[in-house]
Amino acid sequence: MKKYVYLFSEADGSNKALFGGKGANLAEMTKLGMPVPQGFTITTEACTKYYADGEVLADEIVEQIFDALAKVEKLQGKKFGDLENPYLVSVRSGARASMPGMMDTILNLGLNDVSVKGLAKLTGDDRFAYDCYRRFIQMYSDVVIGVGKQAFERMIGDLKDSKGYKSDVDMTAEDLQSLIARFKEYFKADQGYDFPQDPKEQLIGAVKAVFRSWDNPRAIVYRRMNDIPGDWGTAVNVQSMVFGNMGETSGTGVAFTRDPATGEKKLFGEYLMNAQGEDVVAGVRTPSPIDHLKVQNPEAYNQFVQIANTLEQHNKDMQDMEFTIERGKLFMLQTRNGKRTANAALKIAVDLVKEGMITEEEACLRVEPKQLDTLLHPQFDAKALKAATPIAKGLPASPGAAYGKISFTAEEAVERNKAGEKVVLVRLETSPEDIEGMVAAEGILTVRGGMTSHAAVVARGMGECCVAGCGALVVDEEAKTVTIDGKVYTTEDYISLDGSTGNVYAGIIETKPADISGNFGTLMGWADKYRALKVRTNADTPKDAAQAYAFGAEGIGLCRTEHMFFKEDRIMSVRKMIVAKTVEARKAALNELLPMQREDFVGIYEAMKGNGVTIRFLDPPLHEFVPHKDAEIQELADELKMSFAELKKIVDDLHEFNPMLGHRGCRLSVTYPEIAEMQARAVMEAAIIVSKRNDYKVTPEIMIPLVGEVKELKYVKEHVVAVLEEVMKEQNYKLDYKIGTMIEIPRAALTADQIAKEADFFSFGTNDLTQMTFGFSRDDAGKFLDDYYAKKIFESDPFAKVDQIGVGRLMKIASTEGRAVNPDLHLGICGEHGGDPSTVEFCHDIGLDYVSCSPFRVPLARLAAAQANIKNPRK
Amino acid sequence: MKKYVYLFSEADGSNKALFGGKGANLAEMTKLGMPVPQGFTITTEACTKYYADGEVLADEIVEQIFDALAKVEKLQGKKFGDLENPYLVSVRSGARASMPGMMDTILNLGLNDVSVKGLAKLTGDDRFAYDCYRRFIQMYSDVVIGVGKQAFERMIGDLKDSKGYKSDVDMTAEDLQSLIARFKEYFKADQGYDFPQDPKEQLIGAVKAVFRSWDNPRAIVYRRMNDIPGDWGTAVNVQSMVFGNMGETSGTGVAFTRDPATGEKKLFGEYLMNAQGEDVVAGVRTPSPIDHLKVQNPEAYNQFVQIANTLEQHNKDMQDMEFTIERGKLFMLQTRNGKRTANAALKIAVDLVKEGMITEEEACLRVEPKQLDTLLHPQFDAKALKAATPIAKGLPASPGAAYGKISFTAEEAVERNKAGEKVVLVRLETSPEDIEGMVAAEGILTVRGGMTSHAAVVARGMGECCVAGCGALVVDEEAKTVTIDGKVYTTEDYISLDGSTGNVYAGIIETKPADISGNFGTLMGWADKYRALKVRTNADTPKDAAQAYAFGAEGIGLCRTEHMFFKEDRIMSVRKMIVAKTVEARKAALNELLPMQREDFVGIYEAMKGNGVTIRFLDPPLHEFVPHKDAEIQELADELKMSFAELKKIVDDLHEFNPMLGHRGCRLSVTYPEIAEMQARAVMEAAIIVSKRNDYKVTPEIMIPLVGEVKELKYVKEHVVAVLEEVMKEQNYKLDYKIGTMIEIPRAALTADQIAKEADFFSFGTNDLTQMTFGFSRDDAGKFLDDYYAKKIFESDPFAKVDQIGVGRLMKIASTEGRAVNPDLHLGICGEHGGDPSTVEFCHDIGLDYVSCSPFRVPLARLAAAQANIKNPRK
Repeated sequence: MKKYVYLFSEADGSNKALFGGKGANLAEMTKLGMPVPQGFTITTEACTKYYADGEVLADEIVEQIFDALAKVEKLQGKKFGDLENPYLVSVRSGARASMPGMMDTILNLGLNDVSVKGLAKLTGDDRFAYDCYRRFIQMYSDVVIGVGKQAFERMIGDLKDSKGYKSDVDMTAEDLQSLIARFKEYFKADQGYDFPQDPKEQLIGAVKAVFRSWDNPRAIVYRRMNDIPGDWGTAVNVQSMVFGNMGETSGTGVAFTRDPATGEKKLFGEYLMNAQGEDVVAGVRTPSPIDHLKVQNPEAYNQFVQIANTLEQHNKDMQDMEFTIERGKLFMLQTRNGKRTANAALKIAVDLVKEGMITEEEACLRVEPKQLDTLLHPQFDAKALKAATPIAKGLPASPGAAYGKISFTAEEAVERNKAGEKVVLVRLETSPEDIEGMVAAEGILTVRGGMTSHAAVVARGMGECCVAGCGALVVDEEAKTVTIDGKVYTTEDYISLDGSTGNVYAGIIETKPADISGNFGTLMGWADKYRALKVRTNADTPKDAAQAYAFGAEGIGLCRTEHMFFKEDRIMSVRKMIVAKTVEARKAALNELLPMQREDFVGIYEAMKGNGVTIRFLDPPLHEFVPHKDAEIQELADELKMSFAELKKIVDDLHEFNPMLGHRGCRLSVTYPEIAEMQARAVMEAAIIVSKRNDYKVTPEIMIPLVGEVKELKYVKEHVVAVLEEVMKEQNYKLDYKIGTMIEIPRAALTADQIAKEADFFSFGTNDLTQMTFGFSRDDAGKFLDDYYAKKIFESDPFAKVDQIGVGRLMKIASTEGRAVNPDLHLGICGEHGGDPSTVEFCHDIGLDYVSCSPFRVPLARLAAAQANIKNPRK
Repeated sequence: MKKYVYLFSEADGSNKALFGGKGANLAEMTKLGMPVPQGFTITTEACTKYYADGEVLADEIVEQIFDALAKVEKLQGKKFGDLENPYLVSVRSGARASMPGMMDTILNLGLNDVSVKGLAKLTGDDRFAYDCYRRFIQMYSDVVIGVGKQAFERMIGDLKDSKGYKSDVDMTAEDLQSLIARFKEYFKADQGYDFPQDPKEQLIGAVKAVFRSWDNPRAIVYRRMNDIPGDWGTAVNVQSMVFGNMGETSGTGVAFTRDPATGEKKLFGEYLMNAQGEDVVAGVRTPSPIDHLKVQNPEAYNQFVQIANTLEQHNKDMQDMEFTIERGKLFMLQTRNGKRTANAALKIAVDLVKEGMITEEEACLRVEPKQLDTLLHPQFDAKALKAATPIAKGLPASPGAAYGKISFTAEEAVERNKAGEKVVLVRLETSPEDIEGMVAAEGILTVRGGMTSHAAVVARGMGECCVAGCGALVVDEEAKTVTIDGKVYTTEDYISLDGSTGNVYAGIIETKPADISGNFGTLMGWADKYRALKVRTNADTPKDAAQAYAFGAEGIGLCRTEHMFFKEDRIMSVRKMIVAKTVEARKAALNELLPMQREDFVGIYEAMKGNGVTIRFLDPPLHEFVPHKDAEIQELADELKMSFAELKKIVDDLHEFNPMLGHRGCRLSVTYPEIAEMQARAVMEAAIIVSKRNDYKVTPEIMIPLVGEVKELKYVKEHVVAVLEEVMKEQNYKLDYKIGTMIEIPRAALTADQIAKEADFFSFGTNDLTQMTFGFSRDDAGKFLDDYYAKKIFESDPFAKVDQIGVGRLMKIASTEGRAVNPDLHLGICGEHGGDPSTVEFCHDIGLDYVSCSPFRVPLARLAAAQANIKNPRK
């Protein structure tokens, strides 16, 4: 028979997968001879079996639980439900990865009408015993049975009102006894049977409740946010209760071996005498700093310091420990690697290497790549922030902090910015036409749209603070007001945005620039030393390119050219090109764009100082560049000197049922090769200009988007190559160049062996590839993805983290089969996913050459790439 | 050195891939000792090399051509450019598959200022000789050099005008000589050099021109229509000229060994004495029936009859032959398997088996599956049709013939049909709401939309005649008129449609019902005997199901349920369901639909008499069921007793950016499982009703659409199974049932090993799978697909013929990996492709169990399946 239940003394402290983090650490502390209240762990396999069996706890597991219980009772010399020496336990979840507060915990299990008396006798404190019992009934009814939460609170309220009590602590033992009686009455009336008196029945109920809580909505959300697979399951730890509230020689506390906020090396924590754990959390009394214990109980203090040191040495990381002192005697309830701020994480990792406790590689593994993000953006001054109260909360769409006066349109933002004002752009949602306003603004606040809305994606790309989907805003664009909670704000009001929390504040909260301390540099140096993947950036402007270069980008993996087309000074030429009726007219309009495109590329090449820059040719459908409202069409018609009807027809003909699946990408160049030709000319002319005036030579990399068939690439490539060669001949200057494609259409991946013959590089466009592979669009999926999370169909957002089995399989096919015919094929990823650590790891594992991500994610990607190579070194 | 040029006597008559059809048959006739004017074939490999070399004819090929030429000159005892005995040749294309009229031909090559005199002397006919030379200059200048077409015609016109001639034949030898002089002058002025006098130079120019013509636009279109790959290339046949116009003992003709219209076994053909081939075609003189030759030249006639018999016996098929009699001597210019009508094809195939010439299997291979289509629909009476002139021409979107009075709306069509009128529905384009009107109409005519537009797809599905994209129509829906070429037609006017040609006629042309003669039944019987694939049908109504059953369908592979939702008596319940704010309200609306859905299924189960019926659950996005114009929204709001604003918001919220990639398919059932539950109840209740009252038992097959992740299927399946079991329990009646899914999302194919564990069957939804795999939608691709054909990026429409290397690879992955985990997995295809012969063959080859197609394509699929199994027998 399989073993599902282990005493702490039996369990293997290195096997967190089986015993969960808490269980493994309890086993480890037991093994190290530390004073741990004994108990047992029910494994994660029991949890997965529970779900596989249809949410049923198998008899064999129940049996093993009771066996273990008997052993521990014997060990502790106590008995469940005993009048003299009652045995009480806590029942706690403990998953492989720490998920604080996400799952259920039940304390003081074992209390019933008999054992409560035993507890009273044992502690000499009737009030304490009945308060425990009352709390246990409340907690158990709520968590295990799902009954009475509001009713019980109401009963307590009624009792306090009738007696004129202000606080719970005013209630006497007698009050609590009468409450217990009422609770039990209510329970029986509601459930039709008595509140369970059998501690064993209580225990099995509690274990099932913990297993169930693995799948409660907040745990599901937490797992999605933290990349924790749903099939891991949780272990359950049943531990003998010890009491920190048995008078003034008892107490309870929490401590860290280093400061979790700064990383400073000193014991850091607090405790309360004569209290239980929840009192510390509740904040009714103010806890003392840990070093006061030195005075109150030097022996326990010294013992604790020694244990803390041992644990840190043993686990080679900063520890977060819970302890209880029962009548002077120290008990360790749990230890774990402590959560810490990004700054602390860096300092601790670097310090541990200096202290000789861990290697540089281990240090790289100790810092969560995602944490770095918070270090790279301006932040609110912590004190100023503490004093402020948010007026609304949206989604933390792009980190950083910003303040400015409210601006309702992109044009206004641009103008006021020119005039020297700081503005925040407030929009229902943004569109590509807002791009200049977004650049001009300090931050962006939208009413609609999620984490992957246009505003969010663009803002993250620019490293600009953005709060999205803030539904509490009522925007009146005509009146130029925004109303929040009944209060009206105008264009003269300042607001402040926290893109890391989604909070919106009235007025100015001062910000401070990103603080990249020495530890950051040290760790990044190690990361660069140990990674195999190169890290490029997605940047469309010299400013972004320079920012990314400063963050360590080794080139540009995706330079989109369409944003350039939206700029005020060129959109008219773009529109002329679209309405052109002849190739000649189209070429004339394109010729107007040529010098501007060339200047764009010159700026970007200069910013990247000779590093590779992959320029993607025009991608979006042309209807994105024309107005759609009648008034705007009329205006444009006037400017273009054509009739409204004529222009309206052109606009209507551009309409697409499914723009994502329409006339865009290389399909545009197949229809209008002159567009690609203009872009090719701009690229090569810019490359020659920059190469001539610097001591490096530019190697242009041209990316043809949306290829699904090799002949598309071949056709466009022929036109592009002809122009590149022509320009070099004209200028009598020779440069190498590369022509490649995005792999973003499933068929491109499936026919990579053909496409690779014509391509110097593949760049995985995982945004589109995900859309096509799943058959849903990022814009429309918002309608049902929440249902998918709630119903456990998806565990994570496929637009944030690459779906390895579907999309990833296509990536593997394309990589393997592409390289088979073209061993020099350069492989990278340039979708949003390139800045996701798990995706970076996947890209490393399947042998890509580089990842490309937005500038502010470059450090994250460098670290994630190092972690991937440390875990799975590339030959 | 590779051999690119073969004398007819050297070539291998069985190798059409290398020598083309014409070349191989010339070789074969030569080998059989038949009187073939000698010559040589330049292989298809030379053509592909020509393209691979960048449209250059390699020196080695030129050399081999001249070598062969020298041998043939010697053989014939004539010399190129000779004054006494000039050697002339024809240069003709000859592809592997016959492409009549698609490529270029040049006759009388070898004529120049010298040899024309030789020809005159030889024939004793100056006028003939100079007419040949003038035609040669015209043809060569146009086809090879691309010059002078209009100018030469104008010169001829001017000359005739000045002399008062009415016809070309009025021109004298002197007239022709002066024309020749003017032609040459023009040529020199335009090109800067003399018209080529060197016959060898002429020859090489002509060969290149034929190679080039392989890629002319009409050849590309023909190949796409006939599934001929672009990389086959064409061979070139250089054949000694013989002359049928050397007086009254010469002649030329064309004959078939059987009647190509009826298939009757008798020599069928016509000839003209003293004429060249083009005279027969030009129709200036009326040719004589072939048997008149018996009188004019019994020897030649008998020889020809014998040759015809030998060729038919040798090739085991009806032959189409060209011959020339030069001064009493018969020459065979070419033979090929003759094109024939569908009826003739059937009769010939069956007769050849009866005659012991071919086997049943060979007979199955002799009939083009696509031809069968024309036999299954009503047709216009041939005589009546001959007398009529089309008033407009659209796309032949769905075959058959129909007439009726013009009806401009679906509602009107329904009402007038009820009142006993025959109507033709004329619409700008159709939408799903028109479905009832489409059923009520005799035929459908649309102004917009292509071969895969809504109207076309639905009409083909129903076997109803449809002409689509008829841009010549100006429809005024308000005035209820349609104007064609200035003439106005009203709802009282009759029009007639020919869905096989796209022609539209004014007035009534009588139709006659499909004539499925005995040969049809015989051949279908053989097809059924030799096929391995089952053939099902796509049918949503009992009427369609019955039609398909009559055509031999062995079940329904796709029964869409959404068309049922659009019916007049239920759309309101559907809309109530959509606007419901609570699950209860939604269930109430669904309950209104339940009895109707049940009746639908009862009717379909009865029609299919116990054969499998795969019912696909609701698939389209919900916004398809609500109105979008304000007036209609207001109307619906009134009916639903809600405010306009409230309903408008619901409609707006349903809007999707990319409906194809939106909230549809199983995603609807994940959000609203109650929809699937209602449908499951309707299915099982219907199945029980039908099983109880018949001697067969229905096995419901439920198809969950648009699955991309196994957990979607699992989730919906759990809800469905619960209802199925519940219904069986309620009714105390047990039936087997199957639950499966469409494979129409790339990810479904890529994760088939997981999905197959939960599915009893996979049905490949190749319409959507093609859209997702290529990343373009059927509705939007029309904008660029023509460019793709013109630029040779695509050779065929991926929505008509499955793309085997991309989409097909996903199908193979899904089949192989699905069966690996679930060997009983039932596999089929239900996209539009299921009725395409090449796709049927592919489905056979990858081991599917069945194909499913629209009712009128069932016979086609049965035959295609037989051909596939005969070519590649399944073990």
